[in-house]
Amino acid sequence: MNRYNSGLYTDFYELTMAQGYFLSGMKDKSAVFDLFYRSNPFQGGYAIFAGLEDAVKALFDFSYSSQDIEFLKSYGFDEKFLDYLKNFKFSGDLWSFREGDVVFPNQTLLRVDSNIIEAQLLESILLNIINFQTLIATKTNRIVWAAQGRPVVDFGLRRAQDKASIAGAKAAFIGGIAGTSNTYAAKKFNIPAMGTHAHSWVQCFSNELEAFTKYSDIYPDNSTLLVDTYDTLDSGVPNAIEVAKQMEKNGHKLKAIRLDSGDLAYFSKKARKMLNDAGLDYVKITASNQLDEYLIKSLLEQDSPIDFFGVGTKLICSYDQPALDGVYKMAEFDQQPSLKFSENEEKINNPGKKQVVRYKDEQGYFFMDGIILDEQVEDQIDNLRHPSISHKHTKIDLNKMKTEKLMTKIIDKGKMMYSFPNLEEIRDFSKKRFSLLPDEHKRFVNPHLYRVGLSDELFNLRKRLIERREDNYH
Amino acid sequence: MNRYNSGLYTDFYELTMAQGYFLSGMKDKSAVFDLFYRSNPFQGGYAIFAGLEDAVKALFDFSYSSQDIEFLKSYGFDEKFLDYLKNFKFSGDLWSFREGDVVFPNQTLLRVDSNIIEAQLLESILLNIINFQTLIATKTNRIVWAAQGRPVVDFGLRRAQDKASIAGAKAAFIGGIAGTSNTYAAKKFNIPAMGTHAHSWVQCFSNELEAFTKYSDIYPDNSTLLVDTYDTLDSGVPNAIEVAKQMEKNGHKLKAIRLDSGDLAYFSKKARKMLNDAGLDYVKITASNQLDEYLIKSLLEQDSPIDFFGVGTKLICSYDQPALDGVYKMAEFDQQPSLKFSENEEKINNPGKKQVVRYKDEQGYFFMDGIILDEQVEDQIDNLRHPSISHKHTKIDLNKMKTEKLMTKIIDKGKMMYSFPNLEEIRDFSKKRFSLLPDEHKRFVNPHLYRVGLSDELFNLRKRLIERREDNYH
Repeated sequence: MNRYNSGLYTDFYELTMAQGYFLSGMKDKSAVFDLFYRSNPFQGGYAIFAGLEDAVKALFDFSYSSQDIEFLKSYGFDEKFLDYLKNFKFSGDLWSFREGDVVFPNQTLLRVDSNIIEAQLLESILLNIINFQTLIATKTNRIVWAAQGRPVVDFGLRRAQDKASIAGAKAAFIGGIAGTSNTYAAKKFNIPAMGTHAHSWVQCFSNELEAFTKYSDIYPDNSTLLVDTYDTLDSGVPNAIEVAKQMEKNGHKLKAIRLDSGDLAYFSKKARKMLNDAGLDYVKITASNQLDEYLIKSLLEQDSPIDFFGVGTKLICSYDQPALDGVYKMAEFDQQPSLKFSENEEKINNPGKKQVVRYKDEQGYFFMDGIILDEQVEDQIDNLRHPSISHKHTKIDLNKMKTEKLMTKIIDKGKMMYSFPNLEEIRDFSKKRFSLLPDEHKRFVNPHLYRVGLSDELFNLRKRLIERREDNYH
Repeated sequence: MNRYNSGLYTDFYELTMAQGYFLSGMKDKSAVFDLFYRSNPFQGGYAIFAGLEDAVKALFDFSYSSQDIEFLKSYGFDEKFLDYLKNFKFSGDLWSFREGDVVFPNQTLLRVDSNIIEAQLLESILLNIINFQTLIATKTNRIVWAAQGRPVVDFGLRRAQDKASIAGAKAAFIGGIAGTSNTYAAKKFNIPAMGTHAHSWVQCFSNELEAFTKYSDIYPDNSTLLVDTYDTLDSGVPNAIEVAKQMEKNGHKLKAIRLDSGDLAYFSKKARKMLNDAGLDYVKITASNQLDEYLIKSLLEQDSPIDFFGVGTKLICSYDQPALDGVYKMAEFDQQPSLKFSENEEKINNPGKKQVVRYKDEQGYFFMDGIILDEQVEDQIDNLRHPSISHKHTKIDLNKMKTEKLMTKIIDKGKMMYSFPNLEEIRDFSKKRFSLLPDEHKRFVNPHLYRVGLSDELFNLRKRLIERREDNYH
């Protein structure tokens, strides 16, 4: 249900271009493509890179069945090209950031070095996977950050965009969720499955008290009672208290109540007081209903006594920005650096084969990143340039800074070079990396811009190619 | 790659509730659930219902493998309940609107009449499928409506939410796209695959003219040239014209140029004039770049000579509203009508087993819909009530109005009763139905509200249950 196993899972123009390269005798020409995004999602200060493992699986699975070939034949594709596709197998190199890392605009997150046809055909599927998982991991990271240590659970399956629920739950785990209601994803990725009960459970009994009693009889050690089917404070909470008291007599403890409507600050405070007054300090409060990072932050600023957050729609489809603007641009062709020009200065890509370096201060906090040419030695670079404003640059004191290359070789000439960490390790890595990003970059409103500079060599290469662009017109 | 074949594809609480019903001896109790949405997406006047075929397939595929059972065992589920799940097979009735129909808030789009366990377990998957496909069909309908007959093509694969690209392309076809770049979806659903070429094609040649020439040599009868790699008006269009003239000498015609950046009104007018001045009136103009219904409408109001629209991100993830607020509420339990109360009057559901009736005027245009009780005879109902304001009602002149029942029985006691139209038939049906919706409901800004009333009997039942709700507290 969750494989990307067809070479047809690509934009049609990738196929027509691939055939074009093939028929023009260019099939063995080398190319380098960079996958990067242009602006941080949610007007935030960073993103969390995710999707690498699935992207690599997709790359290895990418192939053409005889049915796929028949389909392409019906569109008039050339027999020789189709023979080539029958044996399609990625034979190039793949470089990438580590999954879960904190990343910034214009950094090469993924780099494909291969022949032009392979690099071109893989464009759409790599973007499809990385764009979505990076988006959801970033959104979740923000929500989890807002919740300040309180567990956040993914409740989004019913509002997810079709089966994006599955990769979405995985990316959300990288972003920090404690569990998911999506049982399929829970099994597939070994994420804790979590849930309470719905209003329909309460409606199936002649009254709310009976419904609560039955539920707690069946789940005496793991009951969260939804208290807003009829009236939260007049009915739901008093009935939950009555049931909790009864449970105590039988040696059990009610785990939590859940609020799913109304003002969650008001109701959580009232409910907390009612529970405490009844000696039920240990009963937790779970809240859900249109939550996102902004509402959670605001609820906690108002001291709402909420212990768990269930987050649905706003997380799983990244409601306020449902797509990352990731692109895949040719940086080199036939060993020559390549540039796509644009009237918009920021849209001109960085040419050449590149690496990204992170400079960290003595405590290990992230200071600045540099995009450099692959052949450069990272710890000899002490000057980073603003990508377009010539007089802006930052001197790096290499005696005080630790340097770290951020891109790793994942695939070498078609062979896996990398062993993937498991999902928990990715989550832990992400959490650790995020802790090294200074807080001023984490603000939801107008965060401090994390600097990403270019090495002099890259800056000059780009400048040269921009100046030379007129030659390419005719 | 596109099946929903696991009974674990559900929210965890559906499983804990299902076990609760099972262990409480309620497994054979009957229940009726309504799937409906509460407000039209995009602040529009309607939605296009889609996803039925996939929802029905999912319902029949919904089952538990031995691995699924093992997984649930690890969460402590009861052996007897797991034995029950092993043999899970939907045995109830399903009623539904026809796929592609024009629908409105609070109408029962899908109705499940079965035992409580089956109805409960299917909640998440039905919502997951219907919410997304209805959303995308509606978004696409709006975009296609704005394009006023000009073909619209789905270019969204790279920005889609993971594999939602596939069901999304299907729903977009119901909504009226002429083709898709998503080749996998094109094959699967028999949608025309379409595409042009990318900037990378141009970058692979020593200059733009050579790139265009090569492309048109390979695709002499189907070339669309992307003209903005270096400079649209100084380089791209002149080179395309030169190539088109050369093609004419060889007996071919350039199909189109594509604009993918800059102001599309400005560039399309300039390019059109340049093409016409060169005697190339037949060369079409395709435009793409962050298009949605609002921008297309505005471009056409400014007389932009654009012939085709390529729409990506804004369509495939329904960018300005990435989720429909569809819900699934219990309307009857154990033969008794059931109600979920809410402080918010509009959030109280319609109880009982229901049908929806459309009243059409003498020309066949949609006048108003009525939600009625299943046992009522639709053409004897001549009064429809506002759902909550008691004095508001509409008299129907049954002599002048044609009535149409909108819900069809799809499954009877677990058996398919319905043969699905193919996708083209669904698209054509949708187009026809949309043409019968008066234009005032189609406005993007503040559309006229289409009336959906309740029969007196349903209104009174709802009122009675609301008044009786206090009895349910304790």
